[in-house]
Amino acid sequence: MRKRFTLQEYKEGVLSGDRTKLSQAITLAESSLESDFALASDLVQEVLSYTGKSIRIGITGVPGVGKSTFIETFGQLLLDSGKSVAVLAVDPSSQKSKGSILGDKTRMEKLAGDKRAFIRPSPTGSTLGGVSSKTREAMLLCEAAGFDVILVETVGVGQSETAVKSMVDFFLLLMLAGAGDELQGIKKGIMEMADGVVIHKADGDNQTSAKKAKSSYENALHLFPLGENNWSTPVMTASSLNGVGLMEIWEMILDFESKMLRSGFWESNRAEQRLNWLDENLQFLLSKFFLEHQQVQKMLTQNRSRVENGELSPLALARDLISTFFHSNQKL
Amino acid sequence: MRKRFTLQEYKEGVLSGDRTKLSQAITLAESSLESDFALASDLVQEVLSYTGKSIRIGITGVPGVGKSTFIETFGQLLLDSGKSVAVLAVDPSSQKSKGSILGDKTRMEKLAGDKRAFIRPSPTGSTLGGVSSKTREAMLLCEAAGFDVILVETVGVGQSETAVKSMVDFFLLLMLAGAGDELQGIKKGIMEMADGVVIHKADGDNQTSAKKAKSSYENALHLFPLGENNWSTPVMTASSLNGVGLMEIWEMILDFESKMLRSGFWESNRAEQRLNWLDENLQFLLSKFFLEHQQVQKMLTQNRSRVENGELSPLALARDLISTFFHSNQKL
Repeated sequence: MRKRFTLQEYKEGVLSGDRTKLSQAITLAESSLESDFALASDLVQEVLSYTGKSIRIGITGVPGVGKSTFIETFGQLLLDSGKSVAVLAVDPSSQKSKGSILGDKTRMEKLAGDKRAFIRPSPTGSTLGGVSSKTREAMLLCEAAGFDVILVETVGVGQSETAVKSMVDFFLLLMLAGAGDELQGIKKGIMEMADGVVIHKADGDNQTSAKKAKSSYENALHLFPLGENNWSTPVMTASSLNGVGLMEIWEMILDFESKMLRSGFWESNRAEQRLNWLDENLQFLLSKFFLEHQQVQKMLTQNRSRVENGELSPLALARDLISTFFHSNQKL
Repeated sequence: MRKRFTLQEYKEGVLSGDRTKLSQAITLAESSLESDFALASDLVQEVLSYTGKSIRIGITGVPGVGKSTFIETFGQLLLDSGKSVAVLAVDPSSQKSKGSILGDKTRMEKLAGDKRAFIRPSPTGSTLGGVSSKTREAMLLCEAAGFDVILVETVGVGQSETAVKSMVDFFLLLMLAGAGDELQGIKKGIMEMADGVVIHKADGDNQTSAKKAKSSYENALHLFPLGENNWSTPVMTASSLNGVGLMEIWEMILDFESKMLRSGFWESNRAEQRLNWLDENLQFLLSKFFLEHQQVQKMLTQNRSRVENGELSPLALARDLISTFFHSNQKL
């Protein structure tokens, strides 16, 4: 059975940078127990004024693009620059990619062995909605523990990218040269979400094709509209194998940070993300109460496929479900 | 004061293709009165088995790209091919673009004067959530009235594109040649949503630059991942001024239709859209009840900015709001 601590114990542990207590606090935040939720929520509130000082970087790319190797090498470089680094993963890796059943820690041995780094293996068996909101909490807890850079890793094939994009300052997309078949794996829409694109594994025989891919993507992205931050997405090449191009990526991110701080986008983006997080939480909790309602559940199970095949109007079912929900709730 | 009819009167009017009754039915669906919502919902359910036989085409592009002229000419071509055409607009045009205060009908004179066409001027002053769900109902009502093609027009600068994308079979993006400044107007993410891109106003001096733009976009889109329908987005040039390229666009859409019918994507996409519509309605109604709750409103007004500036945790506020909502509801 898992041991709980008091709010004060968690808070002091996290703020002092105690890795074990930080881990335990994240576990608390990831718990689905009602009582843990209350405590975790109080803890986040308690440490809130100590958060927000890190650079939050989302990293995505299909399995095989070398995310773990990249994070291992990139993280090392950050440590060497005097930054402390926390790595969080959004997707349950055991479900999504092969060979990582032992957890993320075994994929990033050097980083995991370094005391200035903190790697949080991905939670398994959780739903996306749950995991994504918990990742935000984990991120804030890591910030309160004093980490300078938070890397949030996600696999670019599911729905988690939008969630990660909505909680980071910078969203990095790793790609492979060749721009052919391997593209099929990336989900449509992710290219336009990226703040930076890296053609990874640009080493050995790949160097020429990586350079070619870089220039193709530069031309392509040039044709696409800029976001409201007015940032034109750079395309770079990098090799984690021999460490080439990684410092340039870090400099690019620092350039982004300084431009966005100057324009005010950095803070306005974070403010918007906080409000989105509020909305997400409200929707999540409302849906939760709604879907746990027995009559609602029954009615939905019986009629969902009738909506799906066009027999029953979504409007009609929605109206019935809502009135069932509020009617019986009011009777309580 | 607006006249109401019985469910039977609306139903018969719509199914017989009576334009006046169709207009009145759409007005009913757009109403924000509780009683109208119930009647409109019943009407949609009553005509549901007569819907789904049209091709639903979303058309987007920034103001100035020539959407009205395109729809006027393209609609004419469809009529000449023996198809009946309904045009719906999502954005309140009077707020978004200049010169259309008199309504969409004056922008599409020829089409508006043709009895085989039906143009629904955009509703004004409505919120997006409202309008978008109402557009779905308007679309179904038009289908029940027997229209073969539904064109849903939206301005590519706001949030309505995602809503339109989620209710159509084919999403067409109109662009201008030059690929420079005019791009700034389009919202990021829209390019990757398009099933077809048209470089519009490819006439006179524009022809060369339009061809160049076409080939640039072809190269760019080739680098981007395919969606789950496995459709590679074509790029075409067209001039509504002299009618060049419009038949090719229609043939491209028919090609899309036949491929998607064969692969099963056509129906699976519509099934998914119906379920999404159910979700949207549920979320909309739940939020409505929630936000109309007085104590919730008060608490939200007092604390929203504290969340925005990072002083109050979204988790904590969400928890307080939800417990306030259900607590007092249960007391009723």
